Amino acid sequence: MEVQNDLLGYGDMKIFQNTEWFCFSIDSVILARYATVNLTCKKICDFCTGNAPVPLILSTRTKSEIYGIEIQKEIYDLAQKSVAVNKLDSQIKIINCDVKCITDELGIESFDLVTCNPPYFEYSEGSNINENEIKRIARHEILINLEEIIINAGKLLKNKGYFSMVHRPDRIGEIINLLNKYNFGIKTIIPVYAKKSDAHAKLVFLEAMKNSKPHVHFGKAIYLHEENGEYSALTKKLFQE
Amino acid sequence: MEVQNDLLGYGDMKIFQNTEWFCFSIDSVILARYATVNLTCKKICDFCTGNAPVPLILSTRTKSEIYGIEIQKEIYDLAQKSVAVNKLDSQIKIINCDVKCITDELGIESFDLVTCNPPYFEYSEGSNINENEIKRIARHEILINLEEIIINAGKLLKNKGYFSMVHRPDRIGEIINLLNKYNFGIKTIIPVYAKKSDAHAKLVFLEAMKNSKPHVHFGKAIYLHEENGEYSALTKKLFQE
Repeated sequence: MEVQNDLLGYGDMKIFQNTEWFCFSIDSVILARYATVNLTCKKICDFCTGNAPVPLILSTRTKSEIYGIEIQKEIYDLAQKSVAVNKLDSQIKIINCDVKCITDELGIESFDLVTCNPPYFEYSEGSNINENEIKRIARHEILINLEEIIINAGKLLKNKGYFSMVHRPDRIGEIINLLNKYNFGIKTIIPVYAKKSDAHAKLVFLEAMKNSKPHVHFGKAIYLHEENGEYSALTKKLFQE
Repeated sequence: MEVQNDLLGYGDMKIFQNTEWFCFSIDSVILARYATVNLTCKKICDFCTGNAPVPLILSTRTKSEIYGIEIQKEIYDLAQKSVAVNKLDSQIKIINCDVKCITDELGIESFDLVTCNPPYFEYSEGSNINENEIKRIARHEILINLEEIIINAGKLLKNKGYFSMVHRPDRIGEIINLLNKYNFGIKTIIPVYAKKSDAHAKLVFLEAMKNSKPHVHFGKAIYLHEENGEYSALTKKLFQE
């Protein structure tokens, strides 16, 4: 059931995905398009990289070295193939390891940016999840949780490095408290709504800075669809640039 | 220079204000319109009440007892007169005291809702502020700061009571960390933009619950103006209902 899909609108870029496991989503596109990539940015690491949409899209914005970390071997293989078919092997390295052991692979305090589109859902032993194992691990905090992600981003990042994330709005309080606990200051929040008439946001983009106080820029709200269900002009732009 | 202005759109309601000191703003209207007022709500307290716009507007939504706390005698006098002219003395009590001593006046843990449109700006000894004393105290954290407001809201509120606030977006990280420190869980965040084309929100409405974990509903974004500068339909509605 392996299928090769074009990565919409990113020129000739292609991405391998298996729809039975998961497809890359607009969440990853927003993360890769909104994360701060400074001119001085030399090294980026994407946690929970999946089939590598974030590294691939980031490579259109920067010449930085980009690392993608994926713990599941089957997904890692897809990511590897996507990097190879796009001839980006010299810029993007995919590593098949646990984010909790990341410093063994990449050392400490040398990265400018860590990005993460993490598993969104909390998990407890009794959780009744009707999904295959690979999808379950990608969507639920089975192998890693929010706190472990933030701890390891902190280890990898330089002083004043950026940590960028997309997540469900209901967890933003918890995220900000954990960022505070590990000495990150929240800097940017952007709410993402499916459409203008919706009563609540379905996603947030957040960015924090290591060893910094919180000082938030609340960015322009993103609306993914028009009321008739079509993609908004902004969504089309995010996929096309 | 005391002037009596109509409180726009709230029927016959009138509010006394002195434009040299300060006028009530859309911020207070949003706070009073978006705060959670349950059917079971019996007692509400508005900190830093100014000329009492929040109690006055809340009185159109609920039969609860409403207290407004104002430390500055001159502003307290205006609030008193506004309550009297609207014949709301039996529902709204304005108290001229320091929020930091509020439990001496109102006891502990008996309120369902505490609202606050606080001084927005941090203050340090050297701050160069070109404003008269009354305005300075209303806008800067001279007599009370965020932490003191949250501590005292915690003392006044019942278990699971609501604390609602409007503030500048840049301070939302600090606010959420303080809420966490004093055992509030953030529940609602609503960004307020001047207009759709703006690059960032100018205000946020936040609501938290005492003795609760954070679980955020990210509400529909508010746009105050159309691109041509006119009030948006929503703003007109907020002033009219």
